[in-house]
This record gives sequence, C-alpha cells and structure tokens, in this order.
Amino acid sequence: MFQQLTIIGSGLLGASLGMAVKNKGLAQTIKVWARRKETLSLCKVEDWCDYAEDDLEQSVKGSEFVIICTPVETIPNIIEKIAMVSNDGTIITDVGSVKSKICYLGDQAVLNSGVGFIGSHPMAGSENSGMGHADLNLFNGKPCIITSTEKSSRNMVEITKGFWKALNMNVYEFSPEEHDKAVAYFSHLPHLISSCLANNLEWKPKSWRKISGNGIKDCTRIAAGDPELWKQIFLMNKEPLMLALDDWENTLLKLREIIQNEDIDKILSFLEQGANFRKDL
Amino acid sequence: MFQQLTIIGSGLLGASLGMAVKNKGLAQTIKVWARRKETLSLCKVEDWCDYAEDDLEQSVKGSEFVIICTPVETIPNIIEKIAMVSNDGTIITDVGSVKSKICYLGDQAVLNSGVGFIGSHPMAGSENSGMGHADLNLFNGKPCIITSTEKSSRNMVEITKGFWKALNMNVYEFSPEEHDKAVAYFSHLPHLISSCLANNLEWKPKSWRKISGNGIKDCTRIAAGDPELWKQIFLMNKEPLMLALDDWENTLLKLREIIQNEDIDKILSFLEQGANFRKDL
Repeated sequence: MFQQLTIIGSGLLGASLGMAVKNKGLAQTIKVWARRKETLSLCKVEDWCDYAEDDLEQSVKGSEFVIICTPVETIPNIIEKIAMVSNDGTIITDVGSVKSKICYLGDQAVLNSGVGFIGSHPMAGSENSGMGHADLNLFNGKPCIITSTEKSSRNMVEITKGFWKALNMNVYEFSPEEHDKAVAYFSHLPHLISSCLANNLEWKPKSWRKISGNGIKDCTRIAAGDPELWKQIFLMNKEPLMLALDDWENTLLKLREIIQNEDIDKILSFLEQGANFRKDL
Repeated sequence: MFQQLTIIGSGLLGASLGMAVKNKGLAQTIKVWARRKETLSLCKVEDWCDYAEDDLEQSVKGSEFVIICTPVETIPNIIEKIAMVSNDGTIITDVGSVKSKICYLGDQAVLNSGVGFIGSHPMAGSENSGMGHADLNLFNGKPCIITSTEKSSRNMVEITKGFWKALNMNVYEFSPEEHDKAVAYFSHLPHLISSCLANNLEWKPKSWRKISGNGIKDCTRIAAGDPELWKQIFLMNKEPLMLALDDWENTLLKLREIIQNEDIDKILSFLEQGANFRKDL
C-alpha cells in the first residue's frame, strides 16, 4: 500500500483507476491532477479522490507512485516536468498505448535522479471516453504490459507489476520496441482497418444500413473510438503500424488472388487458418 | 398458417427455423428433408419436426411453403429438382446469402408453372453452425431481405414477407442485384477483411496473443465462421465482392497516405467520418 498516489488526468482510465485503487485500498491518499476547472470540481466530489489539483508540481509532491493518464502525445512532456520535482524513490508510470518514445524520454528525464520511470500499458480502453464512463471494474481480467529497459530498476519494475496485478490485471513484461510492434498488429492495425471499413461504408446508400448484422457491427465497433486519441496513437506508432499494414496488405493480395482464380482449396485453407487463430484467442 | 411446410436442410438455420415455426404455430405440419441418416434420426426426435425424409420429392409433396436451408452453392440445383414436383400455388424460398444467380435460376425453374420462387435472405447466421446450435430466437429482431424480380407474383412476395415478419424479423425488399451489392459491402467484405486479419495474425509470435483486447476479438469474431460456407459465398458473389474490395482499397490507400504525411486534420476527419457511421448503425 502506498501512503500517497497521484493520478494525472481524470478521463476514462484515470477516473476508473481512482475508483479501483480506492476500492482495493492500494493507497492511503489519492491525489488527482486535472487541467480544466470543471473536471477539478467533478473530481472533488468523488469518493475516490482525496485531493484535486491543477498545479502539476503540487499534485505529485510527496507521492510514491504517479500514474500519467493523459492523452498519449502529452505524456513525454508531463514526464519531463514531474521528474524534476518528484521525491527520490518515486515511481512514475503511465497508461500510454505507444511505448518506445515514452520510455526513451522517461529514461532520459529521470537520468541520475532517484526517481524511476517504468512504462505501463493497461489494455482496458473501449470506444467510450471521459470520466462519465469510468468503471471500478474496467481493469479486471484485462492484459497489462509493463515495458522495462536496461535502465529500469528491477525493484521498481516489480512494484509496478504488483500494482497492476492488485487490480486483477494479467501482467506481462515486454521491451518498449516489442510492445510497439505487438500492439501495431494486435490493436492499432485492427483499429485502422475497422475505421477504414466504417469510413468507406459512410458513403454508401443509407438504405443499406438497415441490413447490418452482427458481423459488420462487431467489425466496426472500435471505429467509434475517440478520433483524437487514435490520431495520436497512429502518429506516435507510425513506423511499426505502417510495417504491419504493408505486411497485412500482402496477405490481402494473396486472398484477392485466390478468390479471383477461384482456387477452392487455397481459399478453404486460408479461411481455416484465420478461423484457427480466432478460436485460439 | 400453412397446412404443411417443408424445411430443406437442418443445419443452424433450418433447425432454428423449425423451432420458431412450431413455436409461433405458423404451420400445422412441418416436414424436414435431410441428406444424412444421422441427421434424419436427430430430426425425428425433435418436437418441431413432424416428418423427416431423405427423398427430396417426398419431402415437398403437399407443402404450400418450402424453405431451402442448404449450403448456398447447392440451392440452384435443389430449386430445379423440387420446382417440377411441387403443387400449383406452392411458394419456394431459400435462405441463401447471395441472390442474383439463385433468383435467375429460380425464375427459370418455375417458368410457366403455378409454382413461385421468391428469394429470401434472413441475416441471422453466426460463427456457429450445425443443428446443435439451433435457437428458437435466432431470427428475432434481425434483418431479412426478400428479393423480388419482375417475374415474381406480388401475392407470393407478400406471403413470403408475412412469413418472416411472423418470426419477428425486420423485412426489406431489394432486387437480387441490389441485394448482392449491399451484402458485398455490409457482410462479405467485412468477413473477407476479418479473415484476412486473423490469417495474418496466425503467423505472428504466439506470445503476442496474450495481449489481445476486445478490439481484436470483435474484429476477428466472424473469421471463426465456417470456411466451407464462406468459400461458397465469396465465389457466388465474386464480382460484387471484388468491386467492393477495389473500392475499399482506395479508401485504405487514402488513409495510408494521410498517416504517412502526418496530415493531422485529414486523419482526424477520416476517423470522425468512420465514427459517425458506427454511431449511426
């Protein structure tokens, strides 16, 4: 249990985290940083929030564990600001969906200080966003990737793992580079494809929408996600994402050719390989 | 209510249909045709099945309404066989996912007879298949497209619509050609893309699978569908599907370019258009 813990940002992940930390008794005191006045007022009346601050420096003062839950492109800047004012021994982590840049900057920011930066990626988002959708059980049973580097303190890595495990997450450790490659394939590419399908269908006759079955609804559910968040993710993970897209387009070309050639056996085996993957998930 | 109704084929759709027809009291007698001995035995002990036959001619004798629920590529052949032996006034329909070829052959098969062929496409499938997954409520609230041609009897179209409406389906009428174009975009293209994603991921490191979130699970759910069924659908609707794929690849190319160029405004508006589509579904 931490004496004091700070959550920076109170959107869907930050607010859900506050509820879960309070509920599990993982911190004596929970401080929240929020930028906007209205959000601050909303936080102040929440049971899980002990102090709400709009001053970044004040919000981390005296905390042993700080979790940055702001939009992914703002994380590097926040790390730099709080690394300088945190106490020795403080662990700073985040919830960003892209890790190489963040971990590289995190390692730089805490260099030669007693503060540690350990990247986290709790994979608990949804197509909803904002504090209004916060959910005590958001993290339950979901995967969480901890990204360690050669500069990471093993002790701090273990404490960070323990924190997410205490929220019932399934915790794995990857290097930041492997993380970014894996999520490019397993999260960002599916989002790109889903958005592309939804965008294409937006321009088709409206009368066709009434024949939407579960298939199209499932395939495009994530396309309803926050465009601002996903724009940031696509740009921050651009290189691994573009490589995954190239690779996927080769697979698509193969499927196109075997359908074009009506190669029954190859179509069947292609579909079977896909079905095998899904059944194993 | 029909005096006698025949269901040809007792897979997921055929068996669910039998249950629903019996439950709603839409037919006094339900006859089922099944090819395999084991399936015949299974049908015979079902409450909803009054007679089970392996002789196609016998199975439709005396029925006013016949629904062909066999794999889509076998439907044209079955229509030809039963059209000749059905009574005047009999309506033959089907549940096939592709309609132009079936309706063209259906019209030819009943030409100058008192029998009518009206195409149906109840969009109630799932990634499951077989009688073991049959469900009384499978059709509830799902879309069903009736495909009429200039040769269709209006009276028979209305009776067929009434039948699916009685099963609580949302019934729409399309030409076979418009149906095939619409499902190419709203059902077959999503399946192709989902299978392609699942196939591509099948070859990635197994350790990455543990980070699968809801996004990838939703996007690939339909990829677990029956490969044999989908191979048939892809081939029977090949032309509309390849046109939809060409069109979709142009959209993908656009998205790739704006990400490559880091054109923030265009990425945002692309993602917003996709989100709008999904929120409207």
